[in-house]
Amino acid sequence: MIPDSVNPDVIVVGAGLAGLTAARRLSGAGRRVRVLEARERVGGRTHTLRLPATGLSVDMGGQWVGPNQPHVMALIRELGLEVYPTHDEGQNLALIGGRLLRYRGLIPPLPPLVLADYALLSHRFEALARTIPLEAPWTAPDAAELDAQTFDTWIGKNACTPQVRALMRLYAGAVFSADPAELSLLHALAYTAHGGGINGHTLTRGHALQDRVLGGAGGIAQRLADDLEDVRLDSPVARVEQDKEGVTLHTPAGAHRAGRVIIAVPPTLLSGLPFAPPLPARRAQLQQRLPMGTVIKFMAVYERPFWRGQGLSGMAISDTGPVTVTFDNSPPQGSPGVLLGFIEGSEARGLMDMGEAERREAALHSLARLFGDEALTPTETVQRDWTAEPFSGGCYGALFGPGVWTGHGEALRAPVGRIHWAGAETARVWMNYMDGAVESGERAAAEVLEGQ
Amino acid sequence: MIPDSVNPDVIVVGAGLAGLTAARRLSGAGRRVRVLEARERVGGRTHTLRLPATGLSVDMGGQWVGPNQPHVMALIRELGLEVYPTHDEGQNLALIGGRLLRYRGLIPPLPPLVLADYALLSHRFEALARTIPLEAPWTAPDAAELDAQTFDTWIGKNACTPQVRALMRLYAGAVFSADPAELSLLHALAYTAHGGGINGHTLTRGHALQDRVLGGAGGIAQRLADDLEDVRLDSPVARVEQDKEGVTLHTPAGAHRAGRVIIAVPPTLLSGLPFAPPLPARRAQLQQRLPMGTVIKFMAVYERPFWRGQGLSGMAISDTGPVTVTFDNSPPQGSPGVLLGFIEGSEARGLMDMGEAERREAALHSLARLFGDEALTPTETVQRDWTAEPFSGGCYGALFGPGVWTGHGEALRAPVGRIHWAGAETARVWMNYMDGAVESGERAAAEVLEGQ
Repeated sequence: MIPDSVNPDVIVVGAGLAGLTAARRLSGAGRRVRVLEARERVGGRTHTLRLPATGLSVDMGGQWVGPNQPHVMALIRELGLEVYPTHDEGQNLALIGGRLLRYRGLIPPLPPLVLADYALLSHRFEALARTIPLEAPWTAPDAAELDAQTFDTWIGKNACTPQVRALMRLYAGAVFSADPAELSLLHALAYTAHGGGINGHTLTRGHALQDRVLGGAGGIAQRLADDLEDVRLDSPVARVEQDKEGVTLHTPAGAHRAGRVIIAVPPTLLSGLPFAPPLPARRAQLQQRLPMGTVIKFMAVYERPFWRGQGLSGMAISDTGPVTVTFDNSPPQGSPGVLLGFIEGSEARGLMDMGEAERREAALHSLARLFGDEALTPTETVQRDWTAEPFSGGCYGALFGPGVWTGHGEALRAPVGRIHWAGAETARVWMNYMDGAVESGERAAAEVLEGQ
Repeated sequence: MIPDSVNPDVIVVGAGLAGLTAARRLSGAGRRVRVLEARERVGGRTHTLRLPATGLSVDMGGQWVGPNQPHVMALIRELGLEVYPTHDEGQNLALIGGRLLRYRGLIPPLPPLVLADYALLSHRFEALARTIPLEAPWTAPDAAELDAQTFDTWIGKNACTPQVRALMRLYAGAVFSADPAELSLLHALAYTAHGGGINGHTLTRGHALQDRVLGGAGGIAQRLADDLEDVRLDSPVARVEQDKEGVTLHTPAGAHRAGRVIIAVPPTLLSGLPFAPPLPARRAQLQQRLPMGTVIKFMAVYERPFWRGQGLSGMAISDTGPVTVTFDNSPPQGSPGVLLGFIEGSEARGLMDMGEAERREAALHSLARLFGDEALTPTETVQRDWTAEPFSGGCYGALFGPGVWTGHGEALRAPVGRIHWAGAETARVWMNYMDGAVESGERAAAEVLEGQ
């Protein structure tokens, strides 16, 4: 720990992957760095939890990485951690329009007209996505027009069948943790482009869901923190004061001062935070316009992954909620069996006001609809409503509604004097993913090193 | 002032019209009330300023009231304040599609096809608006569909001429201080319904812009505050703790405790504020989803209202910015002359990064385009960028983007234990107007009185 009598060179606010990566890079370049974290743990939107009954370690937050995500993959190697492949052997399930389909490969065996509709729509969507500059979506051709409508409006205009509308709704839920109505079309396109297309976000081998971190993704933040000298938990920042020489951060336990500050928390959490002098208007209004996604992550643990015996992969999509996407989340040794269910967007809002027990029942019935009654009797379940976490505000990340990219996008990464911005929302690639968080931390650290 | 050794019965957070009205009603019912205000003045989004050169009092914030707004009109009478009519004699101007038109009455003398287009579109829009329950827009028939698209999408589908698209864009700017792209169609409809239709919001005699408050609208808050025993300025709330018996509010200068609390500030300012226990998820995510409108209010003072001599009312609309709407804001005696110009939505964003001098030039050139070169030489100008005010976050009020009403509307007014919500955003009628602020304060006070 840096003694309180000495000011660090840089203070990082937020001990998620972005903040801790920034701190590591700065520390590696010889800077004295302090990290202030509001929670009593590091990791932010990643959190590996040890279950009380089975002792199993499960990822309650971000968990997947892929070979197309160079920043987080390199960091994992650097930290000496290992990855293992997501289980994806066997047939997938799709419950669409009341029919339960078993299939292998990318697309459920829907009627030919539906498949043609999906092929056309996804081709059109991805072609449009390729026109969006990832780092500056507001400079895209037709940016104003694309940002003036919702993703829902675009789907309604371009999908001819209810099944394809349902598939795109599932895409929005699974990838944005939102309903298509909550997203600007421009954002849906830009975000899709971050993954190189729809499949980049939704598939395992070769894509964003290929691998998981051995021991849990929470281990990344833990190792980062272990290597740092001065990480202070339970230190929420209540006021930020900037002058010509530096920045002072006030926490309930006292003030901290440094020449530069990197703020690496979801922008919405800054909306009511007092800054002196006040932030520039474009930045301040941006922070008001980035609400977080809505997701409940649910896991059910069974003695064994019983679905594997039925030739099923454990991966399923369903247009009947509340669970709309599932995965086999069993540990690499394959025992116990773990089914992971995502509840997202309006499905999550439907369960928001319930108690945990009622929500557990609803989620288990969803799993049973897909995998049979055996799903109803897990040995243990665990759930995390990320919208109820005050220091995240929701997951996976911020939603850009209509008008936000074109009106305020320029302010997303622009430093304000000695204050720099990191966090998954500010990533130039793979925004809102662990990879984007790492990239943003490295970029913010580089800014500070250049500026000093 | 209530002595610090005695806890008040109720604490109100925010000394805008909503908070002060609530405090007045509670105080009138015999409750000991304390008001905590973050700023060094009362009034919130109303603020009457005395100009340094001319000594003229001008309203930098909310300024109009109308006979269709019973709550604020009754309060003005109760406080012994007077109103006077908005100056509206003479011809109006409209600069649409490069043509400057002079006209009397409601609608500029546009080509017959354009007038027919406007008549049809506004009829259709207002008929749809009448289907929206003001207090619960999410229960409207087709609420989900109306809330899944932007107002811009609806205009694009329903307007046949560029002039009508321009008029509706002007409506969004003038009435919501936003671009149509930033608004859910459901919200545009509900908000319009609050005024009984488009004209209810945009016209003078008989409507929302009929009258102004003698001496300035800031006088309402000032008189309310003068009558209260315990209003504490410079007291921003940094943490809210609720238990079974009451609520403790932490400010930098110390803690305050009461049995009940009314929070009467723009919801976005609460997004990062720590609540213990955390707010329910639906309420917390609502607060992330209510960004404030974007408006710069500009006034130019002249020795006399020179436009009146030319037979002009001073009222103008223009689809060439940055000023898109003007009014004659001269004091009742007609001297000096004051032109008021509004700069809103993306027009305001265009001027956000400028200094005051550059912005002044841009605004004066807008006025000259309408009223001639005499507008270029005012004796004094004044401007207020409300987006740069940290304790408002923007004006006139919160914008509801797609999905917000249907996803989170229920949480807007629902008390959380001993915490009640007021503020113009929570009004059951005339939301985001002074009338709505007053109504919300009276409703919240009644809730507290019923609950105790």
